[in-house]
Amino acid sequence: MGRDMKQFSEQWLPPLEAEMRAVLAGNEPSTAAHYGMIHYHMGWVDADFRPVALPAGKRLRPLLCLMACQEVGGDPAQALPAAAALEILHNFSLVHDDIEDGDKQRRHRPTVWAIWGVPQAINAGDAMFALAFAALQRLSLRAVPAETVLGALRIFTETCVALTEGQHLDISFEQRACVSVEEYMRMIQGKTAALIGASVAIGGLVGGAAPGVDASLRRFGQSIGLAFQIQDDILGVWGDPAVTGKAAGADILRRKKSLPLLHALNHPVHGDAFRSFFSQSELTSDDLPAAMELLARTASHEYATQQMNALYMAGLEALRAALGDRAESSLLWSAAQWLMQRQM
Amino acid sequence: MGRDMKQFSEQWLPPLEAEMRAVLAGNEPSTAAHYGMIHYHMGWVDADFRPVALPAGKRLRPLLCLMACQEVGGDPAQALPAAAALEILHNFSLVHDDIEDGDKQRRHRPTVWAIWGVPQAINAGDAMFALAFAALQRLSLRAVPAETVLGALRIFTETCVALTEGQHLDISFEQRACVSVEEYMRMIQGKTAALIGASVAIGGLVGGAAPGVDASLRRFGQSIGLAFQIQDDILGVWGDPAVTGKAAGADILRRKKSLPLLHALNHPVHGDAFRSFFSQSELTSDDLPAAMELLARTASHEYATQQMNALYMAGLEALRAALGDRAESSLLWSAAQWLMQRQM
Repeated sequence: MGRDMKQFSEQWLPPLEAEMRAVLAGNEPSTAAHYGMIHYHMGWVDADFRPVALPAGKRLRPLLCLMACQEVGGDPAQALPAAAALEILHNFSLVHDDIEDGDKQRRHRPTVWAIWGVPQAINAGDAMFALAFAALQRLSLRAVPAETVLGALRIFTETCVALTEGQHLDISFEQRACVSVEEYMRMIQGKTAALIGASVAIGGLVGGAAPGVDASLRRFGQSIGLAFQIQDDILGVWGDPAVTGKAAGADILRRKKSLPLLHALNHPVHGDAFRSFFSQSELTSDDLPAAMELLARTASHEYATQQMNALYMAGLEALRAALGDRAESSLLWSAAQWLMQRQM
Repeated sequence: MGRDMKQFSEQWLPPLEAEMRAVLAGNEPSTAAHYGMIHYHMGWVDADFRPVALPAGKRLRPLLCLMACQEVGGDPAQALPAAAALEILHNFSLVHDDIEDGDKQRRHRPTVWAIWGVPQAINAGDAMFALAFAALQRLSLRAVPAETVLGALRIFTETCVALTEGQHLDISFEQRACVSVEEYMRMIQGKTAALIGASVAIGGLVGGAAPGVDASLRRFGQSIGLAFQIQDDILGVWGDPAVTGKAAGADILRRKKSLPLLHALNHPVHGDAFRSFFSQSELTSDDLPAAMELLARTASHEYATQQMNALYMAGLEALRAALGDRAESSLLWSAAQWLMQRQM
């Protein structure tokens, strides 16, 4: 992370955290456990609701929001409620995703449903969803005009709907043998890119971006979001376990329908071979060398890298459209570079 | 239902339904099944997504909203987006409640999760939650001022949070041996009354209610909502199966922690006897006469009826505070009377 970005994060993460804590506070003993589950998921307390100091998430979305606000000439302090709303929304989606995917662990801790059961976890997620909207409305407390609050709310709500559409496709894909690359791109557009796009767009809107600029910012965020997801997909197959923290070839063994693997599954020449490999009753690390050889023949690494780079470039182009000459020296440019620099 | 109310319903239910269909439409083939599940829950299609004509729900909340708008001198057409939002929110909560309670049937049809599984059902509910907010924002399309839209949104969001608090308590109560009457009232305040209160308050706000009037309308709705829930509790124990459609003493056999049964469980003299009755390993209809005799000794029917009537009267009082001399001839007064007239 560059010095400017580091300085920006150090300045704005504490007030962001304070804003989120204010929105998610709860206010009476009878519902203390309801808010306790939420605080647990946010990393603020342990399973007995005692305060803990865990490393916070990277808070990527709210930071992009605050940066966009600053880069169009606004005061990031005015955008803090929106930044908090975006991070709370992201965390709501994680709570429900963990139930839907049956994941028992997140960040080395048991997930909310694994501790308190599915009914309370669904309901705690619903509370976070509602509180994300409450967070956004606090823009009015920071003198953001009503029309601007409604504009931010429109983008925010569209994004919530897009998230559920992406998640719908993701769940559906698991039950299907064939998924096309186009369908996959549609899925990550909803599940990952829409929220990153909204983060930048809402930051720009609150910061007073000229008409059209917030749309360019949104395109920047969406493209970077797609590129970021594809990078994740590439790391899931070829990433260095020492760097990613995942086992080598993790996504192959999980038969994850990620971009490089879908590219191989749909390959006109070697698709048959990869499909029959993928449909074996059991896959172990012994099967990885054969998989890697098939993936070399389909050139799926090259394909995915090309897609990622094209989206990254399109994102930078959209940022130039938004900020003109200032684009390359902006925090958003540095953030995009930083995001794409994770080690292979 | 009185003639005025019937006429009002016949006039406004079709445009309400059209407003909800517009918001919940979906817009592309890839997510057709996502929106199909929502349309199924709304009663518009069957499980194969073919149109059906089922008797719609009573649409109580949106009708109260539209009535309140009219009674303060507004045009109900302007409040249609809010009415749609309230009904969609109510239906979102039913989709998630059905999962949380493990209920496989609703209105003689399989529930969404029973057909499409828990992951897709959680996600379809989330989409309805987001779309309820989208519905509300359509107030701007009907020339409702931005400040009024934000006022409606504030009440709406508070209500969403209250719903999750009520649901949190409801789920918790199932795992507890003792629940006090006060705790129960707090639960139904969140789970049932808050949304009915919000329906009337938002209708009044959009209709241009004078300051303070929308707060009185909200109190009216909340009190009537509480009275309505207690009536439901009474019917669950003493209702005529031919009228309620439930088995006699249904709530006793389900050990439901409803107001009259909590009153008996907490009774200073006969509480012990009722608690040991309730904790029997199996309860069948053969046990009902003994239960009814215990409930007669605790006078729980009388207690619950008294609470219901007091809340009903408090509701009418709040309506008088809101509408003055016009209260008794208003549609909201008729609606309250109609709601409380269900047969014992």
